[in-house]
Amino acid sequence: MTTTVAPIVQSYVQDAWWAPEDSGKAVLDASTGEEIARVSAEGLDVAGVIEYARSVGHQSLGEMSLHERALVCKQLAQYLNDRREELYEISYRTGATKRDNLIDVDGGIGVLFTMSSKGRRELPNANVIVDSPPAVLSRDGSFIGEHILTRIPGVVVQINAFNFPIWGMLEKFAPAFVAGVPTIVKPAPQTGYVAQACVRMMLESGLLPKGAIQLVSGDNVDFLAHLDYRDAVAFTGSAATAHSLRSHPNVREGGIRFVAEADSLNCAILGPDATADTPEFAAFITSIMVEITAKAGQKCTAIRRVIVPQERVAEVAAAVREKIEAKIVLGDPRAPGATMGALVSLEQLSAVKEAVGALCAAGGQLHGTLEAPEVLTADGSTSVVANGAFMSPVVITFDDAHAAAVHELEAFGPVTSVIGYSDLDEAVALAARGAGSLVATVCTNDPDVARRLVTGIAGHHGRVLTLNREDAKTSTGHGSPVPVLIHGGPGRAGGGEELGGVLAIKHFMQRTAIQGSPQMLTAITGVWHKGAAMRASGAAQFGGQEGSEHPFRKSLVDLRVGDAFVSDLREVRLEDITAFANETGDQFYAHTDEQAAAANPFFPGIVAHGYLLVSWAAGLFVSAAPGPVLANYGLDNLRFITPVAAGDSIRVELVAKRITPRVTDEYGEVAWDTTLYNQRDEIVATYDVLTLVAKEWPAGQ
Amino acid sequence: MTTTVAPIVQSYVQDAWWAPEDSGKAVLDASTGEEIARVSAEGLDVAGVIEYARSVGHQSLGEMSLHERALVCKQLAQYLNDRREELYEISYRTGATKRDNLIDVDGGIGVLFTMSSKGRRELPNANVIVDSPPAVLSRDGSFIGEHILTRIPGVVVQINAFNFPIWGMLEKFAPAFVAGVPTIVKPAPQTGYVAQACVRMMLESGLLPKGAIQLVSGDNVDFLAHLDYRDAVAFTGSAATAHSLRSHPNVREGGIRFVAEADSLNCAILGPDATADTPEFAAFITSIMVEITAKAGQKCTAIRRVIVPQERVAEVAAAVREKIEAKIVLGDPRAPGATMGALVSLEQLSAVKEAVGALCAAGGQLHGTLEAPEVLTADGSTSVVANGAFMSPVVITFDDAHAAAVHELEAFGPVTSVIGYSDLDEAVALAARGAGSLVATVCTNDPDVARRLVTGIAGHHGRVLTLNREDAKTSTGHGSPVPVLIHGGPGRAGGGEELGGVLAIKHFMQRTAIQGSPQMLTAITGVWHKGAAMRASGAAQFGGQEGSEHPFRKSLVDLRVGDAFVSDLREVRLEDITAFANETGDQFYAHTDEQAAAANPFFPGIVAHGYLLVSWAAGLFVSAAPGPVLANYGLDNLRFITPVAAGDSIRVELVAKRITPRVTDEYGEVAWDTTLYNQRDEIVATYDVLTLVAKEWPAGQ
Repeated sequence: MTTTVAPIVQSYVQDAWWAPEDSGKAVLDASTGEEIARVSAEGLDVAGVIEYARSVGHQSLGEMSLHERALVCKQLAQYLNDRREELYEISYRTGATKRDNLIDVDGGIGVLFTMSSKGRRELPNANVIVDSPPAVLSRDGSFIGEHILTRIPGVVVQINAFNFPIWGMLEKFAPAFVAGVPTIVKPAPQTGYVAQACVRMMLESGLLPKGAIQLVSGDNVDFLAHLDYRDAVAFTGSAATAHSLRSHPNVREGGIRFVAEADSLNCAILGPDATADTPEFAAFITSIMVEITAKAGQKCTAIRRVIVPQERVAEVAAAVREKIEAKIVLGDPRAPGATMGALVSLEQLSAVKEAVGALCAAGGQLHGTLEAPEVLTADGSTSVVANGAFMSPVVITFDDAHAAAVHELEAFGPVTSVIGYSDLDEAVALAARGAGSLVATVCTNDPDVARRLVTGIAGHHGRVLTLNREDAKTSTGHGSPVPVLIHGGPGRAGGGEELGGVLAIKHFMQRTAIQGSPQMLTAITGVWHKGAAMRASGAAQFGGQEGSEHPFRKSLVDLRVGDAFVSDLREVRLEDITAFANETGDQFYAHTDEQAAAANPFFPGIVAHGYLLVSWAAGLFVSAAPGPVLANYGLDNLRFITPVAAGDSIRVELVAKRITPRVTDEYGEVAWDTTLYNQRDEIVATYDVLTLVAKEWPAGQ
Repeated sequence: MTTTVAPIVQSYVQDAWWAPEDSGKAVLDASTGEEIARVSAEGLDVAGVIEYARSVGHQSLGEMSLHERALVCKQLAQYLNDRREELYEISYRTGATKRDNLIDVDGGIGVLFTMSSKGRRELPNANVIVDSPPAVLSRDGSFIGEHILTRIPGVVVQINAFNFPIWGMLEKFAPAFVAGVPTIVKPAPQTGYVAQACVRMMLESGLLPKGAIQLVSGDNVDFLAHLDYRDAVAFTGSAATAHSLRSHPNVREGGIRFVAEADSLNCAILGPDATADTPEFAAFITSIMVEITAKAGQKCTAIRRVIVPQERVAEVAAAVREKIEAKIVLGDPRAPGATMGALVSLEQLSAVKEAVGALCAAGGQLHGTLEAPEVLTADGSTSVVANGAFMSPVVITFDDAHAAAVHELEAFGPVTSVIGYSDLDEAVALAARGAGSLVATVCTNDPDVARRLVTGIAGHHGRVLTLNREDAKTSTGHGSPVPVLIHGGPGRAGGGEELGGVLAIKHFMQRTAIQGSPQMLTAITGVWHKGAAMRASGAAQFGGQEGSEHPFRKSLVDLRVGDAFVSDLREVRLEDITAFANETGDQFYAHTDEQAAAANPFFPGIVAHGYLLVSWAAGLFVSAAPGPVLANYGLDNLRFITPVAAGDSIRVELVAKRITPRVTDEYGEVAWDTTLYNQRDEIVATYDVLTLVAKEWPAGQ
């Protein structure tokens, strides 16, 4: 053990590193008890931190678009990815093994990657997101409405749990950053030095604009006193702390957007079909073993309640114990061969043992031991480490599945309870006794059992995983939130939602209904709305202006929403319909048999194929020569409104609606609002034509 | 004045009418002071009410699908619509004029209509809503995930404000009912007799299943003590009451889903361009006049702060006063010619006058009088009514736009303040001083001003209306929430969201991420997922089964998700591409000019038109003879993935994905997951084909 003075974990505030006025509280290595750092925020100007984010951070983030910020997320992910071994080394001191670090470090970097790609793929390259199709609110279309999202006008303060100092930080930072909202990180003091190391790297990358992130190391910092309805607090931790924060007057009355993700009594249910000889049973046992031992069971999502057919309680408990014996080697994460590390601290170890005691007092039967285990140490020997926070995994069985303690008392360590159900309704009722959980696993190969269990418990859960032979090998696992799906749950789980693809970004934005004329909504959103002004080229009789250029001849540099093309009418003759039927093979009776077509409730007689209409429309609006429009890569929301009979004519109107330059390519997407009319000006069809358009034409102009 | 004993306002609980144990508190006619009703909930079994909803209500609503419940909403709307004159008559006693009743009664019925049509048009005819496209979570596609929505497993308790007893009830009831969640209504005692009359009609309609609605008339009912994370409380009223409810332990710790919509200090901003001679100025003044006088200014959404260019404060105040003089006749709503009624009670009148006094004490200058006005009475005479809660509209101007009282103190009556700004940034800052509002109006004809003001204030508002000459006549108005757009706002406005089309319904559902194999997710959702089993007819070499029927030959009675058709390959020759180009007119160079096509970054050389591919696909999958498939009414999400060159072949795979029988028609919608492959089994294109399919074939079978 070294005798040097442990370094203070500095904070990073107002774009400078800052040390507290006192020497702080000691943080110890989880496996050895060695003092490795000291933590304090004594003397910090909290109001100054928040004001800096609101002014400098807001300003600098607002100068970038959603796509630009999303791209920085990717670059940051690449930068951290190159330095992740350094983070592993530091993180070993928390008791985290290599496997735990894959969840924490690589998982955190993964969120940065996902938010980056989702943000750029699914959101506009702008700062206003149109979040609903426009609704026409007046008969003449002069008054319309829709929803937009803009970033919240404040800051995100994230208050994190000790167990995943990097993932917990990045899964909140990434979406807030893409949304354009400055972040203030408050890590848990036990493992804040890991978060600090990561923040230091993020700053060293040089990628982050001013005020985008600040870090406050230390405890007892009353952020909430300085926050209001403009701000969000994203909390991860115990239900008790969540309750206390939610009682703050600035949450109750001040309107702080408070999002909590609390550890909950998550369950796994074994279906009646999954007997011991099935692949489902094996997958179920493995899943429990993994959840009980990963991060030494210190996971908000760990399986705390194993709900199995009544007659299989003993069998499941024994199988789990056996699996643990076979697979788990307790030890210092730096010891080769160790597969499960220490709890984060001796205090945590005591708390878990106390909870196990209470569970046993409430009728539980302990399988395993609470005695200090022999473990692998970093030097390769095996011994009981007096100051190491090690604990052997234990299983507790209950005769009474309804014992309150099972459903209310959480041992936040390598501990799980096994209880029995008599039928599926009881299994659902037992799952619901958790009073709101982050996640449940339903293990069955019977689709009907899966449907009954999942729809029965969904209302009580943020996530439900079905486990069977089809996904046992490929599943990302019960305990792992994935960035594209929401993380959080009702009730005991905190009532919050995080992650979920672009939902994560939208969580840090305000939804606002906007109403007005198409012209004004176009100006506000940058997206063209039907009824707003067009600058049309094409057929003069339908509004085309003399000498104006076909919008397909404009590169992104020149193209503006509202640029349009209007075609002339083209007559559809019966022989065209017949020829199209013959060539495509689409001999549907509505196109070939006058009598049968007329008997159809929707058609007057033989009508043109919808596919003929959109094909002809392309012929009417195309600009044939090479130009900035590189490809038509798809269509959205095609609806056929009025049938076209032989002798009718069609024309097309096409307006640049949404222009999305890509930050990484020499082209971007343009969506064209497209309407087909007949000779009576009735709408024949509406859709969006999706094209790729060069930023400059000729390239490099 | 009559001397009969006023009737007690009964509650409707556990599907029976119930009277309290005491004689309750008196409720007076707003215009005359006559005692018209008594209200109390003394002795009510609150726990029994909630338990009844959770058991009987949940059961009966769960036996219906989303569409079935939505259809009942429409039938209920039609029923109430036929009896709305009865409701007007009762409502006059609250001081509400005919114009006010159009907002309250007709507006409430309108929400029922909208939720019905939106629910049936945009949601599945089922009880599980798939709320996101599936995400593939493993390389081989055996593990996927998505979000579903299911109804919350509890009840909705609505605690309503006095001002819109019917709209306030129906705008919460309709979406909860469609979602499948039982409602308990707690109206404000002052106007609860109006809500009671409406509930009575709803019950008399015979349309509602057991336990779907209960009504608790009376005050001091501690619902929250009996609620938990399964339940939602939808509150409308004062910010102070919202704060107090939010402090309840069952909200802070119990996880009650608490949604508040509180009155806020909404503003209207006049753009610098809108000088006195513009249509915008006139529309602005009219809007303020309407908002200050409708419902005697007792609206959560009323304009409390009028923000205008500094030099126009006096001009605007005078114009508003003038407009009021010209348009407003105070009186008993039953008096012909009265255009503005009484406040709801003498207590309310005192509170408003007190607030006006405080605003003046804080630097405001009063324009108008607080003296009791002469009003039209029901007998046609004009007099001061001693017990009538009448108040003349007043305007207050401030020299100091930043005076705290303007932005914090609400006079919930016919009162508005006018303040000045020097530039747009200050206008935005002043609007934000409201600390979160339901709605703002931005009045300008300059698109750039609109953009700057709206994006500047959006983060502080739930709704923003832009007013100009284009929508002045057709706008639904500043103060009127519309059912298709969200209602609610951050901060002072309560932080909640209501309405918003199907969002309103989703607010009463739990979002759950589900993960598993395509097979299991198909079983849970009833929607076919790529990778799940198909029962294919068609080409044997691509999986078609001997003797199985083309799915287009199956009516909805027989069709199941997973029913599929696989075609043979068809070769695309250069002459086909050329012919298609000639016939459609689509001579885009990628289809006609080998050299130019090869120079395009996405194409190998000449490729087939995307429109040719989907047209041929239809030819490959069609079943030509009359049958249950009545029409192909559209396509969704068409994406071209791999280009098809001359000499390539294509084939199509089409799987029944989503089946939506309509409750009111003899047919329903079927979405077919459609994939085009080339001869190398590469995906050429993906899309959904949308069809209308008969429930039975031949009809009436």
